[in-house]
Amino acid sequence: MPVTTGRRADAQRNVAAILDAAGARLVRDPDASVSDIATAAGVGRVTLYGHFASRTELVDAVFVRAMARAHEALDAVDLGGDARQALARLVGSSWQVVDESRMLLVAAQRALPPERIRDLHENPMRRVRSLLDRGRADGVFRSDLPADWLVAVFYTVVHGAADELGAGRLAADAAPGAITATLLAALTPPGDPVPAPV
Amino acid sequence: MPVTTGRRADAQRNVAAILDAAGARLVRDPDASVSDIATAAGVGRVTLYGHFASRTELVDAVFVRAMARAHEALDAVDLGGDARQALARLVGSSWQVVDESRMLLVAAQRALPPERIRDLHENPMRRVRSLLDRGRADGVFRSDLPADWLVAVFYTVVHGAADELGAGRLAADAAPGAITATLLAALTPPGDPVPAPV
Repeated sequence: MPVTTGRRADAQRNVAAILDAAGARLVRDPDASVSDIATAAGVGRVTLYGHFASRTELVDAVFVRAMARAHEALDAVDLGGDARQALARLVGSSWQVVDESRMLLVAAQRALPPERIRDLHENPMRRVRSLLDRGRADGVFRSDLPADWLVAVFYTVVHGAADELGAGRLAADAAPGAITATLLAALTPPGDPVPAPV
Repeated sequence: MPVTTGRRADAQRNVAAILDAAGARLVRDPDASVSDIATAAGVGRVTLYGHFASRTELVDAVFVRAMARAHEALDAVDLGGDARQALARLVGSSWQVVDESRMLLVAAQRALPPERIRDLHENPMRRVRSLLDRGRADGVFRSDLPADWLVAVFYTVVHGAADELGAGRLAADAAPGAITATLLAALTPPGDPVPAPV
């Protein structure tokens, strides 16, 4: 085996160990330092900085990986049938993902600009957009406001709930119901009755 | 005049000049440096750091002052009569304030944790809360979700609109209408029809 391949394999193992350690540390303490993370990963700070030039870059990479996993997890959600019921299912699963990685979101909010966090949600938001488009075509979601705006409302309400949970103003078990009821009402076409929460 | 009084007056003038300069610089460039701000204020960096120990402290102080002014501006909004129409007026004025200081909000989002920004909105949010309580008592706003949550929805939707505007996904002239229509729908009691946008 040529030397470079061995080195490359080592580097890949180090990067994986650093990302694993960073993810595990940041969900326990969103202010975890680079030194803490290097120690947890079993690598030196110099090695860590060889792969990630700054703490910001490292938090970004952890968040990118978490979003990719979230996207995969949300692939399992059945988005067929009535668009309102599909939305309720998507909120339930999205909330589970957000809730599980809430401290990582806090770490990201402290290290990255809001627009970067939003950009990293592009794939999940595309899924929301496609469901909204279908509900609008079926006449169960409002068509009088821009689709981009309604996608933003989904994003902002789910993340607002995560912030409220963190602040102790919203109970974890009340969150998915409150988010779903709020979004279904926000999406109801003018003149139609707001659906009763299930 | 005793020396200390003169020094105190100088210090107050310096603080005011620094806050004015910081506010003016940050709305043009949310990443404006401490050196830029000191130059614009006509003081040295050492003087500035004598009053604000860090850039974060300075941004915080600018934001505190902006929020106090916003709170005063919102005092002029008539919150009487039909709670839905009062909400539309409050959204219009709140949006105007948020839009005017949007770049300052961006600067704050980059320098301060989200929970600090939310805490600094306590006074405006108390106003929202009191209007929501009245609308719930009158039966025009939903009472089946926690009041804290509905206040959070107001906050998150208005700030979400500011982020969308910044990202170029929402037009400035469409924003107040979209926010109002969304919030009125989100607040409509289950079973009642969603009001048509005005």
